[in-house]
Amino acid sequence: MTLLLTNDEVERVLDMRASLQALEPAYRDVTEGRAVMRRQSQTYLSGPLPQSSYCLKTVEGGSEALGVMAIRLTSDVLRGRQVGGKLRREKVPAAPGGSFLGLVLLFSLSTGELLAIIPDGIIQRLRVGATSALAADRLARPGSPSVGLIGAGNQAEAQLRGLACVRKLAHIRVYSPTPEHRTDFATRLGRELDVPMEAVPSPSEAIEGADIVVTATNSGDPVLDGDCLRPGMYVGFIREFEVDDATLGRADVLVVHTQQGDIDHYTPRGREDLAQLQRGRGYPWHRHPELADLVAGRVLGRTDGAQLTMFMNNFGVGIQFAALGAHAWREARACGLGREIPTDWFLEDLQP
Amino acid sequence: MTLLLTNDEVERVLDMRASLQALEPAYRDVTEGRAVMRRQSQTYLSGPLPQSSYCLKTVEGGSEALGVMAIRLTSDVLRGRQVGGKLRREKVPAAPGGSFLGLVLLFSLSTGELLAIIPDGIIQRLRVGATSALAADRLARPGSPSVGLIGAGNQAEAQLRGLACVRKLAHIRVYSPTPEHRTDFATRLGRELDVPMEAVPSPSEAIEGADIVVTATNSGDPVLDGDCLRPGMYVGFIREFEVDDATLGRADVLVVHTQQGDIDHYTPRGREDLAQLQRGRGYPWHRHPELADLVAGRVLGRTDGAQLTMFMNNFGVGIQFAALGAHAWREARACGLGREIPTDWFLEDLQP
Repeated sequence: MTLLLTNDEVERVLDMRASLQALEPAYRDVTEGRAVMRRQSQTYLSGPLPQSSYCLKTVEGGSEALGVMAIRLTSDVLRGRQVGGKLRREKVPAAPGGSFLGLVLLFSLSTGELLAIIPDGIIQRLRVGATSALAADRLARPGSPSVGLIGAGNQAEAQLRGLACVRKLAHIRVYSPTPEHRTDFATRLGRELDVPMEAVPSPSEAIEGADIVVTATNSGDPVLDGDCLRPGMYVGFIREFEVDDATLGRADVLVVHTQQGDIDHYTPRGREDLAQLQRGRGYPWHRHPELADLVAGRVLGRTDGAQLTMFMNNFGVGIQFAALGAHAWREARACGLGREIPTDWFLEDLQP
Repeated sequence: MTLLLTNDEVERVLDMRASLQALEPAYRDVTEGRAVMRRQSQTYLSGPLPQSSYCLKTVEGGSEALGVMAIRLTSDVLRGRQVGGKLRREKVPAAPGGSFLGLVLLFSLSTGELLAIIPDGIIQRLRVGATSALAADRLARPGSPSVGLIGAGNQAEAQLRGLACVRKLAHIRVYSPTPEHRTDFATRLGRELDVPMEAVPSPSEAIEGADIVVTATNSGDPVLDGDCLRPGMYVGFIREFEVDDATLGRADVLVVHTQQGDIDHYTPRGREDLAQLQRGRGYPWHRHPELADLVAGRVLGRTDGAQLTMFMNNFGVGIQFAALGAHAWREARACGLGREIPTDWFLEDLQP
């Protein structure tokens, strides 16, 4: 049977703590040559709206211990929009009912068959937050930190939930450009996490005095001033666009999510503009240690309380979707959740 | 609704002639900047059997005229085997019922939703044969050719069916290593195509005196001796492994399927051996014109009856699966074929 899940079902069997527990051994498997990751690709065509594009984004990965290979794919209608003087790329809920398409497909390594079709919404929030937390646990100072957060979307929520799994948080300050968003966010998350939390009107006020700084925006430009960073801080960036090279250059320890840091972009001939907002700046990812080696203890994290440490470019890699997808699939089956589709609907007698 | 088709249903609405008609405008769209192709990737892990591997192979492409983006994925258990003194890589029918998994997923450019899930078996046979025929039509001499065929599998059948759409075939000689295979093949295809056909015991006898030579094998080593080739011949290779550089160097006109000729291989750390049988030799694809430009008339094909012309590396590119998949989807809908699945089973409210 191929199991088809909903986000509600995924949420019932996968939380932030389970995500951390699923990801840690998967990253170790990467270092031990028993897991694989295919670099992310984004394939563009013109979109249905003015100034829009269509993008199929895919990434793959799997591990022998999990027994699965995963592909995560999102089929996106994209639009650029100015927010707070900065250009952002937004996903348009263009599918029926104002919805999106993002799926994780899990395949069996022993038979090749399709084991599960899982929406990526919950997994996506959990994987970014959990991965950041794995990095923060090894790169932030011990103790009970104050946190400065830039961003107030769903990924910002996940950053805090992840951090709360690895540190007892003392205090949080959050900045985002829209006053109501940051105020609502501070009230809601402060209550959920039971941590004193306040909204502040600038990034520098969020950073001032923080032990841990995290950014969770979809900005196309740097979101903080590197001069605000102090010795001893840990700073986590989700996307490379949130930080400039000068700021990265200030790190005493800089770990990247993966040395496959550049995305492969494909556009029609002469339409390189379609990928413009997503094209990286050619940062030399390979010069820095990867999270997998940090998690496996093959490279050192923080060794000194005065070091300024950073983690960057927490974009989706296949092993995350394999680990969290396999957990959701196994637990959902055990609980009798999900819709069963005959697996032979997706098989054929003819050799591909 | 998301339409789920079977190979039998695809076969009812898509034949070789329709495939040629669907592919030709799609290749033109590539040259005109209205279609896109993502390079093929193969992502490996150790397999479930001794000497085996697991591979997820994916490729993407789409066109604005078709209104779709396609991903083709095969989830394969692979095994190496010696056949006729040469090493071949074989797909193991490891899925339930001795089956395979190969799928084409079609997405809407205007909504992002999943339009169709289509097995790739029939499309795979048709796309290779039809693409070869598009090349042969522009690179082979006019008139009624004799054909030399190396290989007697299903792709060899498709090569002949494709050629028969663009030329009235006078005579066919086929070689494959196993005598019964080539004899059965000659009897069966000769009858189907109503062309005199004979099985011969060596590649050189198949090539001798032929106007068109085509190879359709899964050999890991060159399958013909370049010294057998004569001025005026057209030679089509499906895979780069079937031909050595010296033979390619003899071509007066050499067109490649795509300048994205190299496959991106991913393996676990230290397990580069898993992809060994599939790794290309770094051939400089970019130095040769692509099929799309040949089809669009942007580069010249054969200009002289004495030229030795060649087409090589007809491996899967996304635009083929988009064009043939979209045709099958549209015709199947028009005929009321296929199983309808609610499209919202594959959608989500959460932003991916």
